[in-house]
Amino acid sequence: MPEQTKPHVTVLGLGRMGAPIASAFLNAGYPTTVWNRTAAKADALVAQGAIRATTTTEAVAAGQLVIAPLLDHDAVRQALGPTASALQGRTLVNLANSTPDHARELAAWAAGHGADYLDGAMMALPETVATPEAFFLYSGSQRAFTTYRRELEVMAPAHYFGTDAGSAEVHDLALLGTGYAALTGFLHAAALLGSVGTTPEMFAPLAARWLHGMAGFLPELAREAGSAAYADGVSTVDLNRAGVDSLIQLSRASDIATDVHEPLKALLDRRSADGHGRDSFSSVFELLRSRGTAER
Amino acid sequence: MPEQTKPHVTVLGLGRMGAPIASAFLNAGYPTTVWNRTAAKADALVAQGAIRATTTTEAVAAGQLVIAPLLDHDAVRQALGPTASALQGRTLVNLANSTPDHARELAAWAAGHGADYLDGAMMALPETVATPEAFFLYSGSQRAFTTYRRELEVMAPAHYFGTDAGSAEVHDLALLGTGYAALTGFLHAAALLGSVGTTPEMFAPLAARWLHGMAGFLPELAREAGSAAYADGVSTVDLNRAGVDSLIQLSRASDIATDVHEPLKALLDRRSADGHGRDSFSSVFELLRSRGTAER
Repeated sequence: MPEQTKPHVTVLGLGRMGAPIASAFLNAGYPTTVWNRTAAKADALVAQGAIRATTTTEAVAAGQLVIAPLLDHDAVRQALGPTASALQGRTLVNLANSTPDHARELAAWAAGHGADYLDGAMMALPETVATPEAFFLYSGSQRAFTTYRRELEVMAPAHYFGTDAGSAEVHDLALLGTGYAALTGFLHAAALLGSVGTTPEMFAPLAARWLHGMAGFLPELAREAGSAAYADGVSTVDLNRAGVDSLIQLSRASDIATDVHEPLKALLDRRSADGHGRDSFSSVFELLRSRGTAER
Repeated sequence: MPEQTKPHVTVLGLGRMGAPIASAFLNAGYPTTVWNRTAAKADALVAQGAIRATTTTEAVAAGQLVIAPLLDHDAVRQALGPTASALQGRTLVNLANSTPDHARELAAWAAGHGADYLDGAMMALPETVATPEAFFLYSGSQRAFTTYRRELEVMAPAHYFGTDAGSAEVHDLALLGTGYAALTGFLHAAALLGSVGTTPEMFAPLAARWLHGMAGFLPELAREAGSAAYADGVSTVDLNRAGVDSLIQLSRASDIATDVHEPLKALLDRRSADGHGRDSFSSVFELLRSRGTAER
């Protein structure tokens, strides 16, 4: 594709993620305008060919596709607030850390000023931008995603989750939650192994191997949970109840925190008490998805 | 190595794991004696070349290496109890699900009857026996592990964790705990995504990808926890406190269980209150490894 057909891209915010993102667009041959609150942060990018904007309004006016990898919702409001008049016909991609409600609020605000809006969540580190290791989640304008998918993929493989602008942030939090749980489990396990002289460093490769195995198990777990088909599971509620109980007992005997696995123990106990002890482990999903049931 | 130099192997218990284990030894050309409480379960293995023992004492007497993939500690006691007189000079590998203390008890009992003892934990499914996907954890007699490593590797790659016979079971529980945490986190996340119309099946590939990424992050986390070097972490206690809080708020707003992540939130809150908000996330390890501190 000849270079002149590439849309003009604006990057608002040149922090840890913004700088490598702007650099990726320059490397991919896009005309790129950049703005940062501290202007000097743009110097290296200007040397690389970027156009420096001195105000956010100027920056937004310059780009057809306006990408905002700003820190948080306050930074987004502060940067974009004055630019309302320049938004008409632009596509705004908000990559800040937001709540789903903030994303929806901004989508409505952008629509009110004639802009298409995509909310994005970056599952990436600065050094993985523009590599296949990163992936970004999007929701909001379907038109924006379709029109600019090629540009979005300059930053990272792009996944779209529908027109609800808040959806990408919900997916972001869902992934964070999965990761938090796994890392907390690992740190608890590493603490437990201190009792038999195994260091966290010695345990890490084994645990990594195990987590890769768990990742491979998710499609089966998801199939059971998604169809509420819990009857044929090999790994039953009661079997795993005994396992979690052993883990808690051993933690207690080793003077290690026991609270990490207590929520799961309570869920398994409740399933068993409700007569679902021979159902698959995954059936705790039924309690998780209904707060009323889980906390009764 | 000529076949006659291969030690005689006995497999006690031909259940879900025992049958493929006995089969693996036969496939690898080992003279193999098998015993099962329900004798008919040995038929297919006998057809494959196994020698059928009618009592556990006969089975133990036949093997230099006696492998017991029985269901649990009670099954092991029941099967091995009568065999004490035949144990002298044998190496016993107990692959039952045990507690660390049961493993230590059995090690002492075996030593009292002149047998070397290894306790093992099978990180495997029946179909992954004798493939590189499985791995078995061992602890107990160093001599037994060294002498029979080749035979142990017929079943799965073998990892040894020292002379404390209970250590393999502690490692087993540590891995189970890591896995439980990850799977619970996934099921919670899948429940959360119901609020935006994403099914567990749609989420599974994304979550699997994320878990693979988390696995890659464990060595760094372990290095921080192992050296208590929390000062240079990019991902701080306070940053993640905000993340976990958003997750809990969104769970509450979506009528999803909130208790899965509350232990982590409490740990992060306590680290922050103690003046460690700018330390790395991994520093919650300091609270996990000291029950007194974690529950104060």
